[in-house]
Amino acid sequence: RIDPERLWSSIHELAEIGPGVAGGSNRQTVTDDDAKGRALFKRWCETAGLAMGLDQMGTMFARREGSEPGLDPVYVGSHLDTQPTGGRYDGVLGVLGGLEVIRTLNDLDIRTRRPIVVVNWTNEEGARFAPAMMASGVFAGVLDQADVYTHKDKDGKSFGEELERIGWRGDEVVGARKIHAYYELHIEQGPILEDENVDIGVVTHGQGLKWLQVTLTGKEAHTGSTPMPKRRNASLGMARVIELVHEVAMDYQPDAVGAVGHIEVYPNSRNIIAGKAVFTIDIRSPNKQVLDEMDERIRYGIQNTAEALDIGFEVEQVGHFDPVTFDKTLVGNIREAAKELGYSHRDIVSGAGHDACWINRVAPSAMIMCPCVDGLSHNEAEEISKEWAAAGTDVLLRAVLETAEI
Amino acid sequence: RIDPERLWSSIHELAEIGPGVAGGSNRQTVTDDDAKGRALFKRWCETAGLAMGLDQMGTMFARREGSEPGLDPVYVGSHLDTQPTGGRYDGVLGVLGGLEVIRTLNDLDIRTRRPIVVVNWTNEEGARFAPAMMASGVFAGVLDQADVYTHKDKDGKSFGEELERIGWRGDEVVGARKIHAYYELHIEQGPILEDENVDIGVVTHGQGLKWLQVTLTGKEAHTGSTPMPKRRNASLGMARVIELVHEVAMDYQPDAVGAVGHIEVYPNSRNIIAGKAVFTIDIRSPNKQVLDEMDERIRYGIQNTAEALDIGFEVEQVGHFDPVTFDKTLVGNIREAAKELGYSHRDIVSGAGHDACWINRVAPSAMIMCPCVDGLSHNEAEEISKEWAAAGTDVLLRAVLETAEI
Ligand SMILES: NC(=O)NCCC(=O)O
Ligand SMILES: NC(=O)NCCC(=O)O
Repeated sequence: RIDPERLWSSIHELAEIGPGVAGGSNRQTVTDDDAKGRALFKRWCETAGLAMGLDQMGTMFARREGSEPGLDPVYVGSHLDTQPTGGRYDGVLGVLGGLEVIRTLNDLDIRTRRPIVVVNWTNEEGARFAPAMMASGVFAGVLDQADVYTHKDKDGKSFGEELERIGWRGDEVVGARKIHAYYELHIEQGPILEDENVDIGVVTHGQGLKWLQVTLTGKEAHTGSTPMPKRRNASLGMARVIELVHEVAMDYQPDAVGAVGHIEVYPNSRNIIAGKAVFTIDIRSPNKQVLDEMDERIRYGIQNTAEALDIGFEVEQVGHFDPVTFDKTLVGNIREAAKELGYSHRDIVSGAGHDACWINRVAPSAMIMCPCVDGLSHNEAEEISKEWAAAGTDVLLRAVLETAEI
Repeated sequence: RIDPERLWSSIHELAEIGPGVAGGSNRQTVTDDDAKGRALFKRWCETAGLAMGLDQMGTMFARREGSEPGLDPVYVGSHLDTQPTGGRYDGVLGVLGGLEVIRTLNDLDIRTRRPIVVVNWTNEEGARFAPAMMASGVFAGVLDQADVYTHKDKDGKSFGEELERIGWRGDEVVGARKIHAYYELHIEQGPILEDENVDIGVVTHGQGLKWLQVTLTGKEAHTGSTPMPKRRNASLGMARVIELVHEVAMDYQPDAVGAVGHIEVYPNSRNIIAGKAVFTIDIRSPNKQVLDEMDERIRYGIQNTAEALDIGFEVEQVGHFDPVTFDKTLVGNIREAAKELGYSHRDIVSGAGHDACWINRVAPSAMIMCPCVDGLSHNEAEEISKEWAAAGTDVLLRAVLETAEI
């Protein structure tokens, strides 16, 4: 079994870097604080005897050699970047849980046949630069590296420039590595496990997602002296689309969710009717057909709304992945490990996207989930217990040993 | 008659200071560019032989002596500050039209019995610091100087500090001056005069206004893994209120308008359900009872919306003025002047708030409006013709002469 205290103290030591304003974390991807967090993780890996690799997307690969040369490694990990108002565990648990597996193997002097690599994927959150799961997406060949380098944050800085600036762009070609298997431990970010008092979620599937960035173009005009019938109000159009997204998701729930979290209106002045609104729709479903139907209904609704208000519209898909079915053997290993360790467990669908969703396209992958308080995530108040973290990491250790072999 | 070329070239020379990005102006109140614009206006006033006064709100008073000592002056003017994406004429026409009146009197060597004061009221727009018509509101005793000094812009800078910083805080006590009469020339900012091909709007009334700043408080949570029934979505609440404001205004139009131009959601991330939304409702009517009914219906709707979505709400009134009836004698002078000069004219209600609306509470006031292209204002594409500007300023000259007496 792993050392819960060591795991817990590492998690909270990392959380001191890029602290939030309310007890959580603000360590957004390729910022100065991200660089500091990476440096600490690297020091820990080196102390644990791991050799650090770094690819052109800035993804970190900390390798522990296996006993038999020439075998492809087992990968474990997640991401160390956070939302602007994120929690301490989202992503971090998977990376430091992976490190804890290594530390435990070191303590017990266990050498596996296959190498084990602990990985920190760059820009999983997608908060600063769309899309989410960026580096794992490039690794899996779904996203184009040259293209995502040009993606810009709100201040107009590009991902590629910022990665270079913080000094964490490596030379290794992205996706060149062979992965025998990939395990990712993550908090559920939803309420199911806690509600049912279950220790371990055995993740069999992941929801599909679409991010649609919508631009509505009306006409800036005075709020006081422009008669109602002469208005071309982009904010009003946005309001109708936000309601539409909600209605469509409600029609398909519990098999779907939908919301608009990101909004900008221009010029954003109290006495100016907005001439432009830019916002991103996030829709998800574990069922590809449902996702496609939602997409279609929403696009159709946007067009109708725009026509009714005499405003222009553009819809750009800025993120997308199909629903995922994880590898049956690895999923079985996780279920078996939970059973043997005596943890309560259930099969679950991941509501969030994860790096494992992309890696599953190029290598057998699976995920372990542990509960989080109130299902809350992407919130500084995100919380888990030390026991939950330990249970998940114990299961991770056992599943990794099953695949990496002693 | 005034000199249209001189007026026109002054307007466009000033517009070079704090230029917008699309041909208009961004010379927001108490910014460095505002200071530069003030300095240019002051130079022009001094060249025209005027003595500059400056009060504690930064309002500029450029005085031309009258022939008879001891009489209260006639005031003319408006404001030189602009929206972030404003036009070249909103406010500027009234101040530089006032200066053009002085220049013309100088050319013709006409001395009036009463002094004439050209005034530039600080922060008419209210875009950077709420409320609009701030300095004239303090002058009229409706707003409290110590209070508005503490009002903050989006970056947390206060009005008082910024006024001090740009070096345009004067010593004169605000509201100490006696005003015999106040005339304000302004562009219509609406489509009526142009649509009806009328040169001069004789402003008999001004609409009343309320600004309600709403804060909705939900719960930040993950857009993917939070089931629909567990959400407390502040953006969705905001969307419903934006639609509500529109519906209420549509119910009362043409006697009312309503919109939401200013919006902030937190944390504003694509995959986080907004935990907070802050936005400002702008409702107006020339009928006080209608305005009060709208206010009541909207507050009631906000409460219902918040309850339905299990979110918190707060409504703060951040701007307010009752409908205004301008001084009958001055209004008559304007109508008479237009008639005598042979300009087509009609009575009109001001859709926007103006400094004259506040000054009317402490001194007889009236306004002249000239058409603007497409009724467009609070937009960089705001446009008027040289002829419209000249007609309005001719009427201003004649009305001022009537009141200041030769
Ligand atoms: N796990 C997680 O929050 N990933 C970010 C991508 C998503 O929004 O699902
Ligand atoms: N004229 C003008 O745009 N004033 C600003 C105050 C308002 O919004 O009416």
